[in-house]
Amino acid sequence: MNSDREGAARVSTPAQRKVAEIIFGTETFWGKWFDLILIGAIITSVMVIFLDSVPALHELHKKAYFELEWFFTVFFTIEYGTRIWCSPNRRKYVFSIWGVVDLLAILPTYVALFLPEAAPLLIVRLLRTIRIFRVLRLFKLMSHANRLGAELRKTLPILVVYFAAMLIITVIFGCIIYVLEGPNNGFNSIPSSIYWAIVTFTTVGYGDVVPITVAGRAVAAAGMLLGFLSIAVPTGIIAAAIMEKPRNRNGSSVGTSRNYEKNCRNCARAGHDKDADYCKFCGSPL
Amino acid sequence: MNSDREGAARVSTPAQRKVAEIIFGTETFWGKWFDLILIGAIITSVMVIFLDSVPALHELHKKAYFELEWFFTVFFTIEYGTRIWCSPNRRKYVFSIWGVVDLLAILPTYVALFLPEAAPLLIVRLLRTIRIFRVLRLFKLMSHANRLGAELRKTLPILVVYFAAMLIITVIFGCIIYVLEGPNNGFNSIPSSIYWAIVTFTTVGYGDVVPITVAGRAVAAAGMLLGFLSIAVPTGIIAAAIMEKPRNRNGSSVGTSRNYEKNCRNCARAGHDKDADYCKFCGSPL
Amino acid sequence: MNSDREGAARVSTPAQRKVAEIIFGTETFWGKWFDLILIGAIITSVMVIFLDSVPALHELHKKAYFELEWFFTVFFTIEYGTRIWCSPNRRKYVFSIWGVVDLLAILPTYVALFLPEAAPLLIVRLLRTIRIFRVLRLFKLMSHANRLGAELRKTLPILVVYFAAMLIITVIFGCIIYVLEGPNNGFNSIPSSIYWAIVTFTTVGYGDVVPITVAGRAVAAAGMLLGFLSIAVPTGIIAAAIMEKPRNRNGSSVGTSRNYEKNCRNCARAGHDKDADYCKFCGSPL
Amino acid sequence: MNSDREGAARVSTPAQRKVAEIIFGTETFWGKWFDLILIGAIITSVMVIFLDSVPALHELHKKAYFELEWFFTVFFTIEYGTRIWCSPNRRKYVFSIWGVVDLLAILPTYVALFLPEAAPLLIVRLLRTIRIFRVLRLFKLMSHANRLGAELRKTLPILVVYFAAMLIITVIFGCIIYVLEGPNNGFNSIPSSIYWAIVTFTTVGYGDVVPITVAGRAVAAAGMLLGFLSIAVPTGIIAAAIMEKPRNRNGSSVGTSRNYEKNCRNCARAGHDKDADYCKFCGSPL
Repeated sequence: MNSDREGAARVSTPAQRKVAEIIFGTETFWGKWFDLILIGAIITSVMVIFLDSVPALHELHKKAYFELEWFFTVFFTIEYGTRIWCSPNRRKYVFSIWGVVDLLAILPTYVALFLPEAAPLLIVRLLRTIRIFRVLRLFKLMSHANRLGAELRKTLPILVVYFAAMLIITVIFGCIIYVLEGPNNGFNSIPSSIYWAIVTFTTVGYGDVVPITVAGRAVAAAGMLLGFLSIAVPTGIIAAAIMEKPRNRNGSSVGTSRNYEKNCRNCARAGHDKDADYCKFCGSPL
Repeated sequence: MNSDREGAARVSTPAQRKVAEIIFGTETFWGKWFDLILIGAIITSVMVIFLDSVPALHELHKKAYFELEWFFTVFFTIEYGTRIWCSPNRRKYVFSIWGVVDLLAILPTYVALFLPEAAPLLIVRLLRTIRIFRVLRLFKLMSHANRLGAELRKTLPILVVYFAAMLIITVIFGCIIYVLEGPNNGFNSIPSSIYWAIVTFTTVGYGDVVPITVAGRAVAAAGMLLGFLSIAVPTGIIAAAIMEKPRNRNGSSVGTSRNYEKNCRNCARAGHDKDADYCKFCGSPL
Repeated sequence: MNSDREGAARVSTPAQRKVAEIIFGTETFWGKWFDLILIGAIITSVMVIFLDSVPALHELHKKAYFELEWFFTVFFTIEYGTRIWCSPNRRKYVFSIWGVVDLLAILPTYVALFLPEAAPLLIVRLLRTIRIFRVLRLFKLMSHANRLGAELRKTLPILVVYFAAMLIITVIFGCIIYVLEGPNNGFNSIPSSIYWAIVTFTTVGYGDVVPITVAGRAVAAAGMLLGFLSIAVPTGIIAAAIMEKPRNRNGSSVGTSRNYEKNCRNCARAGHDKDADYCKFCGSPL
Repeated sequence: MNSDREGAARVSTPAQRKVAEIIFGTETFWGKWFDLILIGAIITSVMVIFLDSVPALHELHKKAYFELEWFFTVFFTIEYGTRIWCSPNRRKYVFSIWGVVDLLAILPTYVALFLPEAAPLLIVRLLRTIRIFRVLRLFKLMSHANRLGAELRKTLPILVVYFAAMLIITVIFGCIIYVLEGPNNGFNSIPSSIYWAIVTFTTVGYGDVVPITVAGRAVAAAGMLLGFLSIAVPTGIIAAAIMEKPRNRNGSSVGTSRNYEKNCRNCARAGHDKDADYCKFCGSPL
């Protein structure tokens, strides 16, 4: 046990270790069951928030939704407490991304308790909506997504550059259309013209703001065709990245390959070296 | 003949076997002709239902459509009966997907007979529409699609994960826009905000629900650009899957390859091993 | 000279051969100049028809457009006559696709001469528009496109199957939405519901017909996500086809490769074997 | 130093060379800091123009925006002057694309000084908008984009041909819909019908112009499906181009590869041969 790492990693008791295996792990029998129950609870509680936000349903089942919400909040609070209790490195877990997400999933319900009856609607709305972020916890439970994500992360630098180049082009298109279409018709400021350019370039095409002059339509048509062709570039980059993988596997320069199946039991992050004994993100034993 | 398998596979008479070859097979001369006639009958009968659903045409040719519909129903009923009669494994055929589709293609017309004159419009509409599912039978007749489908099936697990990840992202986007845009303008509940997020993320962009605040438009633009880039990922995955194939063909690790040209004569499913003698789905001999 | 082939291929005089080299060929100095002039004439004449169709401009420059149109018609008529005169196989040329397109480019102007003053608008409109088909002649002048087209043609069978499968899926989606959305809101017949399904599935999303019920929106969202993922399949197929090419070039099984640079001087079709001396489509010498 | 090349490349003083290294170079410590400050100044000044174009904000902060604009104009003027002063080949820099962009970024503010109070709105708008072109300078600072651009440039000829073919197809679709939909409903001229065809073909789908007849909708649906499939072709071409790269790297026929990391200090263009000592675009030493 590496209790010297930042003084936070402690020696776990056998009970703590047993529970950690169930709660953080994904390989044991009970760990799999716990994950399934958790996924079910997250999806159900999010569904309740969805339905509660529909004005007509809110009026009808107000009380049921309120009780269900408290049931799930208590469930997630117990789970959050257990996670802290059995975590080999408590501070690391609490301040990790998933620790914050776990807290955000329960906090708003408690905060709402202290809210005055006449709280502004925006605050109520915000608190109710933040609870939905517990859907993010599903990402943690997708080990497959971790693997795909690791492949996609390699293409990130080039995609960011491409993204920036695309933004510059939409800015230019937005400005040209702003001059051509005049102040009428929704093109009354450069930001909203750029908004239109993004809507057009990504081939979304709402139709709420639309060019009506001949010159404006010609520029719009050029932008559409450019956007249409632009989809090809990130696709090519990502397809090339995904396809390169099997070639490397057969090649000789494999080195120490990563293990994406095994998640850390404390912080749930993957991508450790195959011969690693400790999590490289939070220092707890694998 | 494997009459021991579930007690359902019987010894076919020569006549039954001859007819089964024509009806289920796609390789003999008469089998090909039967398939062409069947395709023609399916497409024509679907066209009749299409035209019958147009109110103006329904008034004009009511009687002709009714008679044509009965002609096709009788034709498909005879075909369905013959299929059952000559099938080496009747129970398996009747409860297979294609058996159910074959039944659904004829059932509604008979059910409509027993419907009172004043039946609710929804039921009439539903019965009329279910008959269109006979168009699904065309899938069975596409052997090429079976092969492409077999390749695409390999990419299914990763695509389902990606699909789930995309849904989570649209939920988050829907919630952010729900808070930012307020109750006006179609964003009055979280489900309809998520509907908007899916419409935007997939670059469909109906324009029936559209953000009007500055913050809402900024979030919408971010969602569009993200959706625009997201098309690249499944494309890369599928392109990689399709391209990997020829490499394997030339390689040494071929093993027992599948035979996608030969469909089972009973359940019409393909993908059996090349050395298989019995269908692995319904147990009838190949 | 193969004058025995259908009795149509004649022995050309030296003058005819010289002119044929300029008009049908794309490699000699004068042949290139002739092509450039032809491209210019086609684009200019199409632009004139464009402008003539704008009501405001038609009123202003009626006479100028009329005279320009006759100038181009006479020019294309002389060119069409010369092509027939110098063609080694006249019948083949006249009845080839490009021969018909060449004729369609000039015929409407002559037909309009014999049209009564009070001709129905649709006929006038149709004649005016058919002349635009002369833009198709540009395809003949694109030798690069011929090469790309030859690669894409290999993927055609699988794409047709995919296309058919997509159509069946849109039919199913159209029918489900037809039942769910009821007769209101543009979903009043199955054909228009299928039209909506195609608009949604291809991510065009006009927004003229839009689901308003909860169930309809859920089905629509499923259709959008399916359509969004569907773009990936043809892309993968075509990308694989394009990428396979260089592998073959380095490989050993090259065989007699095709020559896409050299067009037939008579029918302008490419794709002959490298060692071919006669056009395989019309029999005239290469 | 090659003072003989066009008589423009001069012998730089040590001070000029030192400053040129900071201003044009991207590798030294101060060169990197200068680039970061420049990027910040460009983005901030563009943001100011954005906000200034919003009528409500313009009224509120008129004076602040005016002063900020002059601050940035003076900053960019000093930078422009310094660039000319320390450039080894002044004429080449001033008439290079980036030299013109640098000038366009400052000119409009000065021109606006001499503008009468009652200048037409279009001119004011145009001048204000041209200043946004300074965002183009960001392209120069993206060395990664240069590399991606070099790869994409190889696919340009085939993409231009594909682009032209797509334009011809949209022209044909526009004309067919023009005849079918008649003069009503926005299809009143061929150019606006072609605009609709481009909007549909690129899957943008504004919905401002929409077919209403059955025949028109059928043609529109065909155009959508064709456009949907068309995205696949450029994607395949670009993906093939990007993926070919690593194969060449391992191959033997590498030859003199290009150096995209090293930009010319005078004209900022990349892509010189690895053994080049002088910039091949402006003749200044590398």
